[in-house]
Amino acid sequence: MQCSTLGIGLAGVGTVGSGVILALRRNGELIRDRTGGTVEMTVTKALVRDPAKPRAVSLPDETLTTDWHELVEDPAVDIVVELIGGTTDAFDIVAAALRAKKPVVTGNKALLAERGIELFALSREFDTPVHFEAAVAGGIPIIKTVQESFIGNRIHSMSGIINGTSNYILERMTTAGLDFETALAEAQQLGYAEADPALDVNGWDAAHKAILLATLAYGFPIDPEKVHVAGIECVRPIDIDFAKRLGYVVKLLAVVREHPDGSVELRVQPSFIAKSHILASVNGVFNAVAVHGDAAGESLFYGRGAGQDPTASSVVADLVEAARSLRQATGHRGFLPYREGGRLMPIEETETAYYVRFDVTDRPGVIAEIAAALAGAGIGISGTHSPVNPETPDAEFVDMVFLLHTCSFGRLQQTLSEIEQLDCVNSTPVVFRIEKL
Amino acid sequence: MQCSTLGIGLAGVGTVGSGVILALRRNGELIRDRTGGTVEMTVTKALVRDPAKPRAVSLPDETLTTDWHELVEDPAVDIVVELIGGTTDAFDIVAAALRAKKPVVTGNKALLAERGIELFALSREFDTPVHFEAAVAGGIPIIKTVQESFIGNRIHSMSGIINGTSNYILERMTTAGLDFETALAEAQQLGYAEADPALDVNGWDAAHKAILLATLAYGFPIDPEKVHVAGIECVRPIDIDFAKRLGYVVKLLAVVREHPDGSVELRVQPSFIAKSHILASVNGVFNAVAVHGDAAGESLFYGRGAGQDPTASSVVADLVEAARSLRQATGHRGFLPYREGGRLMPIEETETAYYVRFDVTDRPGVIAEIAAALAGAGIGISGTHSPVNPETPDAEFVDMVFLLHTCSFGRLQQTLSEIEQLDCVNSTPVVFRIEKL
Repeated sequence: MQCSTLGIGLAGVGTVGSGVILALRRNGELIRDRTGGTVEMTVTKALVRDPAKPRAVSLPDETLTTDWHELVEDPAVDIVVELIGGTTDAFDIVAAALRAKKPVVTGNKALLAERGIELFALSREFDTPVHFEAAVAGGIPIIKTVQESFIGNRIHSMSGIINGTSNYILERMTTAGLDFETALAEAQQLGYAEADPALDVNGWDAAHKAILLATLAYGFPIDPEKVHVAGIECVRPIDIDFAKRLGYVVKLLAVVREHPDGSVELRVQPSFIAKSHILASVNGVFNAVAVHGDAAGESLFYGRGAGQDPTASSVVADLVEAARSLRQATGHRGFLPYREGGRLMPIEETETAYYVRFDVTDRPGVIAEIAAALAGAGIGISGTHSPVNPETPDAEFVDMVFLLHTCSFGRLQQTLSEIEQLDCVNSTPVVFRIEKL
Repeated sequence: MQCSTLGIGLAGVGTVGSGVILALRRNGELIRDRTGGTVEMTVTKALVRDPAKPRAVSLPDETLTTDWHELVEDPAVDIVVELIGGTTDAFDIVAAALRAKKPVVTGNKALLAERGIELFALSREFDTPVHFEAAVAGGIPIIKTVQESFIGNRIHSMSGIINGTSNYILERMTTAGLDFETALAEAQQLGYAEADPALDVNGWDAAHKAILLATLAYGFPIDPEKVHVAGIECVRPIDIDFAKRLGYVVKLLAVVREHPDGSVELRVQPSFIAKSHILASVNGVFNAVAVHGDAAGESLFYGRGAGQDPTASSVVADLVEAARSLRQATGHRGFLPYREGGRLMPIEETETAYYVRFDVTDRPGVIAEIAAALAGAGIGISGTHSPVNPETPDAEFVDMVFLLHTCSFGRLQQTLSEIEQLDCVNSTPVVFRIEKL
């Protein structure tokens, strides 16, 4: 199937917007292939504040506009991507796009948490979708999970670390003993915190995301003004130390939970969580959401919660969804072969380090013989050990394990088959991989 | 929007099939609400071996059949769910359903890994979808993630613990020092392993799943006969011990990785992985897949990899997808309000334990005064501490922290506002939650 290219109107060419352009350039062909040729997309219009400003990702001059009406109304724009942030112009852009029956992709959690009800009503009225995977937890597909994968689940609870900036600051306070101000300054220097970090550190960025998740899971609008939010500005080294001593770590946690009476608890605040819980290991700018559904049980979704490429990953996935709905190409979702001559690597070529256990007859020279065979094949040994059973210290048949440096599996197999011929080796050696993950 | 109910033909009413019936009964109304009334489903035909056999989940007699043709051809069947397993009858059922243009939902990884190419070709030919989220990692939406959420990503690698039986056995060998045979027998007793556990412990169940993931990620069919698979039958306590001593754990790992030359590595084998890696903490019957995409970066998806309810969760999600495509109801995917009078719990009613830090003027009686106020409100104290700064041991203003037992936030706030009035308390106390996750 061949189709004409869909035009994207990109409102906002900042960090994420540039990431979207780059991702489409890098992987546009792959997307076309994976969708059986139904989805090709290109940025046909881009809303910027200053067209003259030099930018990392170049776009043709005629693509740029400073007037959002021009972007939404352009007949060459089929899908509108809103990445300008804020809740005023962004609202007008999304609303106008929906009225024009142009699907919208947005990463604007504040807009949806504050004014989503109005926009989703427009979406229904004009039967035009609003996609917003990028609004919560960057590259983690948590919106799709709650909306689609867990649609048959009553959601008991969702607990998440969903603000990377706060999480980075708390981790630095924990591991480097920094105070809040120093850790924040460091995060800003590294580009993990905005020049105005207020929404990140005061908890509201996480709260907007939690509100979105809760509305999807529980089906009623939640007024942000009624949500209790506390940020991490009040966290001090003494709190971190005290938590540590008790076996906790301090995290900015968003908690959403349905109670037996049907009421929904939603709160964001610094929290002590047990060091042994999997959420406690979510460090740096990573995000994670633990979801407990009545059928799926406990699940956890972990990944990069912000940044150019991860957020662009979610925007692009939404763009493909939007494109598919425009193309009515929603039927076949099975495996679609798109790569001719794809090559499965023969197992002999794969390379890792190895653990090998030999069953040997214990006599002087055994290690030397095996080691010599490995050396002859150029396979390095990082360790060897023959555990002595205290009950049978003079056993004739013993296990002998070798840790081997990285080499091809083919070379290993070849060498092991030679070693297997040695008198002292009684059976086929057992091989495990040592994985670098 | 109101629609007639869609009929499901359920081939196989075993563990998962019963789970699907139960999930639809339990949450059918929720699904209808969440889809704006577009999706109502009921089982109209069920394929069983012996209609007379008593079963946990009752179905009307006229619904039961022993002839799959009857199920597929029944005009009251709109969607066919294949859960009988195997690659012969299951193939015929899926193929016949597709030819009849009835969407298929299956959890049969062996069928798709062995004969998926034929079935997906039929799916394209008859423009009818095959959904198979339940085929890989039970309740974890990894198929949707790879196919949809990461569609704009080049997938660098996928590493997974995707056979719960093996993982349970390895964990028991690790934590309880059992040998393989004993741990397997235990898993069978608990229902975690089939009477014939061959496919689980020999690695092929995991391999089938890895093959499915790899074909989706890389776009070419992979011949199972060319895949190198080793199971956990060869793992012995000595290997587990040795791994432990070196800071590793032994896991049955499926590794899929694309190399710079485009060739794809795919293997399943017992592996040493570093104890500190997040996959090392995946225990029991849980599954996890770490996915590395070029845009999304490192991600991890964790959850229940098997069992009645988690697998049914994925089948039901696929059923909703299939139903939506039949209903052409793919437009609006934003938030849909479906619960009138939903109630956000006032923050005062929420309950946790707390950490509270007071800024106090250090004089005799401070702890007593604060403790008395807490006691008066019936709030229990589990600990208190006032860290002394060695440089200023006689400081006038000090921090004093209290750990408090679970109580409502309203009661805490009320009590803290009283405490704030005490002469010795210099500012508003700082409160963190202590979360039970």
